[in-house]
Amino acid sequence: MSAPAPALVDLLGLVAYGELLAFDRLAADARLAPDLRRRAALSEMAAAEIAHYRWIAERITTLGVTPDEAMGPYVEALQAYHDSTEPKDWPEAVTKAYVGDAISDDFLRAIADGLDGPDRRLILDVLHDSRYAEFAAAEIRAAIEADPPVANRLSMWARRLVGEALSQAGRVAAADRGALTALISREGVDAPALFRRLTEAHTARMTAAGLNN
Amino acid sequence: MSAPAPALVDLLGLVAYGELLAFDRLAADARLAPDLRRRAALSEMAAAEIAHYRWIAERITTLGVTPDEAMGPYVEALQAYHDSTEPKDWPEAVTKAYVGDAISDDFLRAIADGLDGPDRRLILDVLHDSRYAEFAAAEIRAAIEADPPVANRLSMWARRLVGEALSQAGRVAAADRGALTALISREGVDAPALFRRLTEAHTARMTAAGLNN
Repeated sequence: MSAPAPALVDLLGLVAYGELLAFDRLAADARLAPDLRRRAALSEMAAAEIAHYRWIAERITTLGVTPDEAMGPYVEALQAYHDSTEPKDWPEAVTKAYVGDAISDDFLRAIADGLDGPDRRLILDVLHDSRYAEFAAAEIRAAIEADPPVANRLSMWARRLVGEALSQAGRVAAADRGALTALISREGVDAPALFRRLTEAHTARMTAAGLNN
Repeated sequence: MSAPAPALVDLLGLVAYGELLAFDRLAADARLAPDLRRRAALSEMAAAEIAHYRWIAERITTLGVTPDEAMGPYVEALQAYHDSTEPKDWPEAVTKAYVGDAISDDFLRAIADGLDGPDRRLILDVLHDSRYAEFAAAEIRAAIEADPPVANRLSMWARRLVGEALSQAGRVAAADRGALTALISREGVDAPALFRRLTEAHTARMTAAGLNN
């Protein structure tokens, strides 16, 4: 099934602004790194976001819409998510990157199925490189090994990240012009099932990083 | 003439930390952009720095030194430069990018001549893409067109940027272990002539962007 153009523009606008803001926040969070090697690693994760932003913005432009217009409806919700989840230290920063990247990838992978060939490939191409998740998970495990009680704090932090993400997702859905939610809940994507799958995958990832859900 | 290894490590350490910090500051300055398009453009300039950082860091590693060690001697001076030149608005941010990128490129181009083939190519490869300078110059000219008196403020700002850069360069030279200054003042590079060339090129660029020197 092919996505109608307004839904596609909405989806791409959401993804584009997500990338632009992820860049901004990861770049700032990199300052929390305990050494220059780790700082560079998080900076590289940030830089990957902006490369992906460019591809999405170009696709939006070919649809006859400016990236600014397409991103507009999502500015507030995504900004609110990041404002309410500012990491206080390095373990919180890598946990945020780990949790956020994975959930957004899972969501996009599910949505991609409803898109036509080239757009499906575009969305799959902007998923995060798995070496970033491996780096973040290794940093989380190292933080826990160095100080075991930190596992509890980071587990709570991860729950808060998911909670804030869901609450802002609800806001996006409420403010949506209809096309995006239609795309998500279209024939073939069962929203409760999608939500259950995202949650299960998140739980498995928490365990893999030494956190409890 | 081939650069002795300590001089090469020093040079690469300086370049690497310059990239890492330029990434950090450009990413932060992008928030000053008046719209998302311009914000994305400055974010992309930041992202290019981190890609270059990766290449330089890999070369440092092959020389048997960790990037952290190589960058160590330059942390203070480069940080001091950026701390003393925080842009207050978008025109100041693009002027800083315009002035700083070009001077550091001119400096590196002059130094590259003293390096062996692969390292010379590496240095030439991390010079800034000219489309970034064109973007920045266009933004400066647009700011002046919108508000002519801004030309004076930005001209003063550019002079301050150069002054701070020179004063921190002096600090680097004073703290240098000798190898880097030896590389710069080696046979073939006449330091006063290099300085004169950098200054002339800077003056020409100021004029091109509608600023006076």
